[in-house]
Amino acid sequence: MEKLLAGVDLGGTKLSVGLVKPDGTILDKIIVYDHVGKEEDFIVNYITQLVRKVISANNLKESHLEGIGVGFPGHVRYRDGYTITTSNLKGFKNFPLRDSLSKNFSVPVRLDNDANAQAFCEFKCGAGRGYDDLIFLTISSGIGAGIIINRKIYRGMTGTAGEFGHTIIDPRSDYICTCGNRGCLMGCACGLTMPQMFRKKTEDGIKTTLPLPADFDFSKVDGKLIKQGLEINDPVSKAIVTDCADYIGIGLYNIFQVFNPPVIILGGGLMNLGDFYFSRIKTKFYELARDMIYDPINIVRSEAEADAGLIGAAALLLE
Amino acid sequence: MEKLLAGVDLGGTKLSVGLVKPDGTILDKIIVYDHVGKEEDFIVNYITQLVRKVISANNLKESHLEGIGVGFPGHVRYRDGYTITTSNLKGFKNFPLRDSLSKNFSVPVRLDNDANAQAFCEFKCGAGRGYDDLIFLTISSGIGAGIIINRKIYRGMTGTAGEFGHTIIDPRSDYICTCGNRGCLMGCACGLTMPQMFRKKTEDGIKTTLPLPADFDFSKVDGKLIKQGLEINDPVSKAIVTDCADYIGIGLYNIFQVFNPPVIILGGGLMNLGDFYFSRIKTKFYELARDMIYDPINIVRSEAEADAGLIGAAALLLE
Repeated sequence: MEKLLAGVDLGGTKLSVGLVKPDGTILDKIIVYDHVGKEEDFIVNYITQLVRKVISANNLKESHLEGIGVGFPGHVRYRDGYTITTSNLKGFKNFPLRDSLSKNFSVPVRLDNDANAQAFCEFKCGAGRGYDDLIFLTISSGIGAGIIINRKIYRGMTGTAGEFGHTIIDPRSDYICTCGNRGCLMGCACGLTMPQMFRKKTEDGIKTTLPLPADFDFSKVDGKLIKQGLEINDPVSKAIVTDCADYIGIGLYNIFQVFNPPVIILGGGLMNLGDFYFSRIKTKFYELARDMIYDPINIVRSEAEADAGLIGAAALLLE
Repeated sequence: MEKLLAGVDLGGTKLSVGLVKPDGTILDKIIVYDHVGKEEDFIVNYITQLVRKVISANNLKESHLEGIGVGFPGHVRYRDGYTITTSNLKGFKNFPLRDSLSKNFSVPVRLDNDANAQAFCEFKCGAGRGYDDLIFLTISSGIGAGIIINRKIYRGMTGTAGEFGHTIIDPRSDYICTCGNRGCLMGCACGLTMPQMFRKKTEDGIKTTLPLPADFDFSKVDGKLIKQGLEINDPVSKAIVTDCADYIGIGLYNIFQVFNPPVIILGGGLMNLGDFYFSRIKTKFYELARDMIYDPINIVRSEAEADAGLIGAAALLLE
């Protein structure tokens, strides 16, 4: 029998643990949310239990596994499997996550950044099938990314390569990112900055037609609200989506100039903003790239989407 | 006897042809300038003659060569050895340069972009010795770059990867690049834009202390003039160098976030602006990167410099 892969997608709100076939099909999965706010050791034990649980629920043994792949929502030092930082979980500053898990299992454990895992999922069984090189970008509250070069994840020296979200694309921007810098792509074009954008557009005199209470707390603005706004043609929401899409278009153009990749794959919650958003991104990209495109470049939506993190984590075993 | 490499550095003003040992030492070279403004066929024949000349001047035969490497100042489609575009030579739009040269020789001909060749030179025998990955940037009238990943040149789909110069880093910039876009790194921080910068600083009310004629033609402003200005503490020159260095600092920060490389190597004419310029670049870089650096990154000067193009072109045979 072909061995199975265990995947662990450790998110800031959701923790998914599943069994995945080498072709990327999910055999079974468990999703929990009560890991939020817990300590590192609790989470290590929780993941261990969940992996054991999903194995035994399927009448399998650990020996049926090829190994366990873990996607982490933050920086990972790949060479020793330490997590470096994360803004999505409590703790995990310089924590030996890979080896802490390894101690509980007899099969290998691989640990990587969650966007790298998602990129690898797209490469193995999503929109990136058949390409040797690709760039994957996930745009939601933050911006994550993964680089596949020559059929492998490109991680750089520490393991933190692919942070397109923190590249500076408008030093005169009104917005400061959580990283502390002004004008990085994440600060200009992701969900986390939408409250600042909503306030700015309102201050600029644009009036929202969203039915908001008089004492509306701007900090509650997020991608979902802006999507509602877009649906009712709200001028503020439309202005925000236009700006965000234009900046992502610049980001894709920069990726094009640097990597000259055959395909760029876009995923993440903000892609739910729909065609207005996605077309505007592409329009901006082609406006900038014009006659500098010598071979066609594909800009496409992620295919694996919701389960990309889980499948990608599992697929790390196949790299 | 160990075979020799022939290198051809086809520049916009200078054409160098030389014999290079596999360790990067130049055995002999010929430099000419009268290729400027000539047609493609003339240049193919000229290069052929010069290679034959340097071979026979050293009492050698073509069979003593491993092959011939050519660095081209523009876009190259690597897979078929066509030049795509160049702003440094007449013609060469979709020209089969590699095969046109191949026909005249019995040894292999390799063709690549000149900055890729220089990057490879730094990797083989310059400031990048011992690294598996590096980014090389050459900053002069334009900005070129080469990416070495896993000891090889990363070229992307067409062969045009590494165009950091055309990444947009300030969409609200006053300057438009020769590519037609506003605010790309090249437009904000290279010699070609210095005339625009000089005019802008003057219009902003900064007074130059450079001894310029009353009817001074701004289009003559270049890196050399700005270097003179810097030496006499001219406020306009200093402001220009400061701006350029800050933008290069942003560019390096973006490279750091995307590639997480162990080393970035800087070469090109503007590096002659000296320590004021280079320190300012590094200051800006570290100001942005702060506590996001988890493993030390080296930002160093190119070592091969003047002959990097020639040695790098020859070294293409060793890739």
